[in-house]
Amino acid sequence: MTAPEGHSCLSFLTDYGNTDGFVAACHAQMLRYAPALRVIDITHQIPPGDIRRGATVLADTAPELPRAVHVCVVDPGVGTRRRSVAVAAGGHVLVGPDNGLLVWAAEALGGVAAVHELTNETLWRHPVSTTFHGRDVYAPVGAQIAAGTPLADVGRALAPTDLVRLPRPRREVRPGAAYGEVHAVDRFGNCQLSLSAQDLRAALAGSPQPEHLAVGLPGSAHTLPLAPTFGAVEPGAPLVLTDSAGRLSLAVNGGDAARTLDLSVGDPVDLTV
Amino acid sequence: MTAPEGHSCLSFLTDYGNTDGFVAACHAQMLRYAPALRVIDITHQIPPGDIRRGATVLADTAPELPRAVHVCVVDPGVGTRRRSVAVAAGGHVLVGPDNGLLVWAAEALGGVAAVHELTNETLWRHPVSTTFHGRDVYAPVGAQIAAGTPLADVGRALAPTDLVRLPRPRREVRPGAAYGEVHAVDRFGNCQLSLSAQDLRAALAGSPQPEHLAVGLPGSAHTLPLAPTFGAVEPGAPLVLTDSAGRLSLAVNGGDAARTLDLSVGDPVDLTV
Amino acid sequence: MTAPEGHSCLSFLTDYGNTDGFVAACHAQMLRYAPALRVIDITHQIPPGDIRRGATVLADTAPELPRAVHVCVVDPGVGTRRRSVAVAAGGHVLVGPDNGLLVWAAEALGGVAAVHELTNETLWRHPVSTTFHGRDVYAPVGAQIAAGTPLADVGRALAPTDLVRLPRPRREVRPGAAYGEVHAVDRFGNCQLSLSAQDLRAALAGSPQPEHLAVGLPGSAHTLPLAPTFGAVEPGAPLVLTDSAGRLSLAVNGGDAARTLDLSVGDPVDLTV
Repeated sequence: MTAPEGHSCLSFLTDYGNTDGFVAACHAQMLRYAPALRVIDITHQIPPGDIRRGATVLADTAPELPRAVHVCVVDPGVGTRRRSVAVAAGGHVLVGPDNGLLVWAAEALGGVAAVHELTNETLWRHPVSTTFHGRDVYAPVGAQIAAGTPLADVGRALAPTDLVRLPRPRREVRPGAAYGEVHAVDRFGNCQLSLSAQDLRAALAGSPQPEHLAVGLPGSAHTLPLAPTFGAVEPGAPLVLTDSAGRLSLAVNGGDAARTLDLSVGDPVDLTV
Repeated sequence: MTAPEGHSCLSFLTDYGNTDGFVAACHAQMLRYAPALRVIDITHQIPPGDIRRGATVLADTAPELPRAVHVCVVDPGVGTRRRSVAVAAGGHVLVGPDNGLLVWAAEALGGVAAVHELTNETLWRHPVSTTFHGRDVYAPVGAQIAAGTPLADVGRALAPTDLVRLPRPRREVRPGAAYGEVHAVDRFGNCQLSLSAQDLRAALAGSPQPEHLAVGLPGSAHTLPLAPTFGAVEPGAPLVLTDSAGRLSLAVNGGDAARTLDLSVGDPVDLTV
Repeated sequence: MTAPEGHSCLSFLTDYGNTDGFVAACHAQMLRYAPALRVIDITHQIPPGDIRRGATVLADTAPELPRAVHVCVVDPGVGTRRRSVAVAAGGHVLVGPDNGLLVWAAEALGGVAAVHELTNETLWRHPVSTTFHGRDVYAPVGAQIAAGTPLADVGRALAPTDLVRLPRPRREVRPGAAYGEVHAVDRFGNCQLSLSAQDLRAALAGSPQPEHLAVGLPGSAHTLPLAPTFGAVEPGAPLVLTDSAGRLSLAVNGGDAARTLDLSVGDPVDLTV
């Protein structure tokens, strides 16, 4: 194995919000250990403790960044015996709590290549707070990895199968139908499904792409155009499109699909051709 | 013509919000093509699809930045046949959809010097999503311009008169009076008018600046002090001042003028001396 | 005295919000005068004019940053005769209005070492707006200090005792009891008290740390576990912990203590062993 190329940047995703100084305290650790590297903030607006939301945004965004170390903190178990890990995947490294937050991103990056538990306390900020491991563990360790510390130095190796995983979202594909759920709702109210454009192609089984899909929602049924973009339908009209992460999405041109269709994360969505 | 100096930074303004990974995905493209340049985020909190608000914030802010390339995305027509453009103005370049978003800023920077349509797909990220041209078109093209790609390389030249323009806000100046509207409401509730301090001087036609102005609003009339800053009046009292962008503004010392005076963007405001 | 080492970064804290271009206009000044230095945004979400909140977040965060110049603007008196100052403390410099915003941070950094009033207008952006000293005074002066301008060049020296100070929060420690108040509420609803872990140790006067504390609040009394972290109690249960800034804090595991206990900043909190 040749020496790995360096990392091009750090990314940072948390549920810390932007009203306190938590994010800045972590940035300070990153500056200390990796002063030459840019830090790209993904978001700090994950709802408090919402691991699924964090995992979804991270999985959609991490592959967009060039060879990064991603420091990720949605950590309702901070200070308890939950493990902390660094996960190598596709040339990237994900650092955070072992609570399911990192795994979907690792899969989107090509699969888990290696896992190390963060046990080497010499890399941490001291004294270690019981409530702020972002500042004391994840940011300094992530920055040191980005600056060249070998992954093996952060702690003992774990098997990839040891990682805690979130329940898989509903996703079943049959000829002529695909059953999923609302996986995420974005700022605009677009409802990203747990189904990909590839899932729809599998359901079509070689048939040409239809102009409309039957969409079954909790308590209502719709026939919606399958269109390339918002403006392909009238203002205020709903549609199904493939979003920028390759997932099927329910949207409304110039509107908020989650509100219009009364949908929340986890609601089942049945598509039939 | 001598070789232009380089750009000192990128700026970035969108309606993407800060809860998803959209902004970070664009930052990744900027890092890829212009790794040495700082990116200054103007705001990502433009209300979804509110082109006027985006154009206003951009016009107030762009002239503050040193020779920048501004990547601007408020783009309800993403993926439709609306054009994408790069607009040169006053040593800056504005990159975004041709929907009126960029023109006021170009005028604030000294006027449109050149326009090129973004047609050179070799500068784009591929595959190009139908819903996320910020990531796939505007960020990579803007970053390449900032890094030295000549403007002519992004696509064919257009005439400045070909640009889509927003309706002009109400603004009429006569001796003794100036008729305008609420152009923007800022975080503090200050109501920036479509009238500038210069418009008021024109209305005064050489008379000394009065201590008070008659202010006609929808359904109410007021006599307000014309004062240099909030603290020149009692706490809770309204006033007219010249804001930091040189515009007249209705404000309340320590309060929220939009709420106190029940004003929204577009409401007519008549000033008489 | 040997030449001071340079500053490693700028930090930036305001009540400007993130919806307008105010923050970016200040970043532009920082880029102009200190292009090589990173700017770490602490927060721009201080409630408008809330000096106490700004002072609290700044005091908790500034010590985390390596030798920084902190540009701080919560300035309801902008443009009036209130002074503007640069305060040296612990190798850091704090720049902002002299309204109490900076003093708690200076104390947290080790105490006020020197104060200079910002009177040297050659360091400012001109023309100076009457409403936006962040852009025109604090950002350019802070950036020039960070880039090496000696503190004495910004204006005449003041005595540390000349600084405006905020009222001290309630804080009284006796054997067996500590009387404080809610000092801050963070994004998660954790209620940071005006009492530190050290205050509690002083109240204990050598006794071992108890497992529970009696907590008197306005209109209610509780016996709460004194625990190291959220997850040490059942989900939804309240507790007292030491937060990452070393302060005692009322929290709820997986919940919002301010809402659960109906607490706001300034509410008295009495702890007895």
